[in-house]
Amino acid sequence: MTKRLVVVGGDAAGMSAASQARRRLDAEALEIVAFERSHHLSYSACGIPYWVAGDVDGPAELVARTADEHRRRGIDVRMRTEVEGLDLDRGEVHVRDLESGRPDRLGFDELVLATGAEPVRPPLPGVDARGVYGVQTLDDGEAVLDGLRLRPRSAVVVGGGYIGVEMAEAMVRRGLQVRVVDQAPEPMTTLDPDMGQMVHKAMERMGIDVITGADVQAFEADGEGRVEAVVTSAGTYQADLVVLGVGVRPNADLARRAGLPLGDTGGLRTDLRMRVRGRDGVWAGGDCVEVLNLVSGQFTHVPLGTHANKHGRIIGTNLGGGYATFPGVVGTAVSKVCDLEIARTGLREKEAAAAGFAYVAVTIDSTTRAGYFPGAQPITVKMIAERRTGRLLGAQIVGREGSAKRIDTVAVALWHRMTVEDMTALDLAYAPPFSPVWDPILVAARKASDAVLSSV
Amino acid sequence: MTKRLVVVGGDAAGMSAASQARRRLDAEALEIVAFERSHHLSYSACGIPYWVAGDVDGPAELVARTADEHRRRGIDVRMRTEVEGLDLDRGEVHVRDLESGRPDRLGFDELVLATGAEPVRPPLPGVDARGVYGVQTLDDGEAVLDGLRLRPRSAVVVGGGYIGVEMAEAMVRRGLQVRVVDQAPEPMTTLDPDMGQMVHKAMERMGIDVITGADVQAFEADGEGRVEAVVTSAGTYQADLVVLGVGVRPNADLARRAGLPLGDTGGLRTDLRMRVRGRDGVWAGGDCVEVLNLVSGQFTHVPLGTHANKHGRIIGTNLGGGYATFPGVVGTAVSKVCDLEIARTGLREKEAAAAGFAYVAVTIDSTTRAGYFPGAQPITVKMIAERRTGRLLGAQIVGREGSAKRIDTVAVALWHRMTVEDMTALDLAYAPPFSPVWDPILVAARKASDAVLSSV
Repeated sequence: MTKRLVVVGGDAAGMSAASQARRRLDAEALEIVAFERSHHLSYSACGIPYWVAGDVDGPAELVARTADEHRRRGIDVRMRTEVEGLDLDRGEVHVRDLESGRPDRLGFDELVLATGAEPVRPPLPGVDARGVYGVQTLDDGEAVLDGLRLRPRSAVVVGGGYIGVEMAEAMVRRGLQVRVVDQAPEPMTTLDPDMGQMVHKAMERMGIDVITGADVQAFEADGEGRVEAVVTSAGTYQADLVVLGVGVRPNADLARRAGLPLGDTGGLRTDLRMRVRGRDGVWAGGDCVEVLNLVSGQFTHVPLGTHANKHGRIIGTNLGGGYATFPGVVGTAVSKVCDLEIARTGLREKEAAAAGFAYVAVTIDSTTRAGYFPGAQPITVKMIAERRTGRLLGAQIVGREGSAKRIDTVAVALWHRMTVEDMTALDLAYAPPFSPVWDPILVAARKASDAVLSSV
Repeated sequence: MTKRLVVVGGDAAGMSAASQARRRLDAEALEIVAFERSHHLSYSACGIPYWVAGDVDGPAELVARTADEHRRRGIDVRMRTEVEGLDLDRGEVHVRDLESGRPDRLGFDELVLATGAEPVRPPLPGVDARGVYGVQTLDDGEAVLDGLRLRPRSAVVVGGGYIGVEMAEAMVRRGLQVRVVDQAPEPMTTLDPDMGQMVHKAMERMGIDVITGADVQAFEADGEGRVEAVVTSAGTYQADLVVLGVGVRPNADLARRAGLPLGDTGGLRTDLRMRVRGRDGVWAGGDCVEVLNLVSGQFTHVPLGTHANKHGRIIGTNLGGGYATFPGVVGTAVSKVCDLEIARTGLREKEAAAAGFAYVAVTIDSTTRAGYFPGAQPITVKMIAERRTGRLLGAQIVGREGSAKRIDTVAVALWHRMTVEDMTALDLAYAPPFSPVWDPILVAARKASDAVLSSV
């Protein structure tokens, strides 16, 4: 008998799950219906800042697979259709066609929840003024580009995290005068402040005005309801365009209303196979779930496309009769601002302390190639290790070209609970065009190992 | 009472050992005397091809620390002095000043053997003709540069390994017509032939004539004893200059004559602390020792500066009253030919078979950045895994900028005997300027994991 899989949300996790299930089961065995409320599916949200900057044509470039391509592979994609309710007892979704307004119901045997995340919109006066943008979907990206066509001269970006920093760079490259307003003492709070300061300086070198330690209090609009200024505790700044980059939260309202289990982060809780805890036949993945951080042992919300794709593939494999698990994350992330590469993995100091670790932290400066080799670039590596045991807890990298992807080495070391002393022996690739004879990661591990010995 | 440490060989391993010992013990506790037979010490031999190519000024640029700098730190460096014999029972070295010819003896309490490797000079007619160069020391590099000053028009490089390929590129960039003659079916036999073929093609695109499957039989010299042609099984090629790149072997003759234990590779055997097996007070490191390959469980000779530096530091730490060990290598190496990056780690197919593994091998093509991101470059990853268990055995990478250092991720995975299935969950850094949403390493691990499942 043919079973029906219903997928809620047509981006990375949902469509990966659908595609992987389809690879394993034919239409005879499994009918697949996917609902997406926006105009696009299977897209790279991470590419939006580069589209806005003009590096990438869009939105087609950012779409890995169109609705028609999915349909040709036997997935019944229903665009611009919102799933408004789940009836888990009956095994039905309640949907609405957003164009016609017509409601409908559809039964399912298996359900995948891939509802993603939504940008936090701080509940401040004026936040709904025209020209104030969140950045999460391709539709959001198109809205910002429409906003740029009005030839704004100034932009304020609220929040100095990944999206904030990337969008600030995009706006500068579009010729706007850009300010970033951040509550924290330094931007990029996924790094420790000493590393964030390097990002701060790079942003200033690009001509971005970075206002730290400032709370946004209101958005002021003109007579036509269009934003014209941002009021903060540090002053009022003119802004023809505002980007909200204050983070995202799991979009799990639908799941919450259906009584599904949410964690402290607001994300859905799943088991190792990405099945919603305690619910056979209901799966969840991507930005709407929380994941285990293998270093801290805590559940966290990590909205990244790479995890969403993995989740989707794992769900589809399990749905299709295979076996796959998602053990968790170590907290790896990477970005760049202008020509400065930024990466982190594991825990930063504040997170290590919050998890209960006593730790040592060291920072080293090195180069991406042998110091004498043309094109050698500066790289700074910070490394954090547990006191006494020397267990690696995390690392942060800030540097020029060739720096950031070195974080992967640390990510694998974290995965295996290596000590920094053990890391000093790692067989990393060396040749003058690629590394100093001691790779910067090894230099950091050596210094961390010495610090652990002194800390005992 | 002051003890005396004698170091034989003043390059990476020897001088790292001396420096690290000096950091831990003052001159009151330890006198340090280091003998070096060439004109340089503490240099980067790996940088020689780039010096010859003109990328790097030399030789000073390639010297990390001069004799005077070492002397100021309390290390008595004796240049141009060859150690001709070891009397281990008396604890004496027999030395000769190569300038004056005067012999001498010196007692020691601790001895570090860091005699390096020597290029293999095939015992062929004419191999001692002028204009036939090995490339191992800075003195060799200077000899090649002297040879280039005679304005040669054509060069033959014998051997298509790292040194051969790098020197071939250097010669092309110096304007010579260059042929590489190799016995193997493809150059770069540290890779499997299918990957080596990509290197072959890249060399041809640079204008290098690559003759494979050919044995060199003789070198012909002109009336003045200067090389003018290379006779091979595939034909005779004109050559105003010849570079021998047929590998190096441990320079362990001194140790052998003193009755110290050598392994099958001809290198010294040490314990984990880099002490010569069964010999208290005698240490060895760098290109004159053999190291354990942690994947194959076999001892191998891996003459790389990065290992030599680690060995030296470990010896110096142990000599100085600390504790450090060298667990072995996984076989990581990296190079480039023109803009093609080449990397490997673990075992290639032939090595896996020789070690007794039944294996599957897969190859994937991907890009270094998100496919839509400007500057995304092609990358090919080959991955080898044990049948049934799925244990990772090795990987090879050939690609353009941003490819090669990804091998480090695999190197750490190998260190921990990961399965390729486990690798598919690794938390590697993703953002469009740095990686597709599935990093090429993850794509290869996925395909290898599928192949393992099908092979059971």
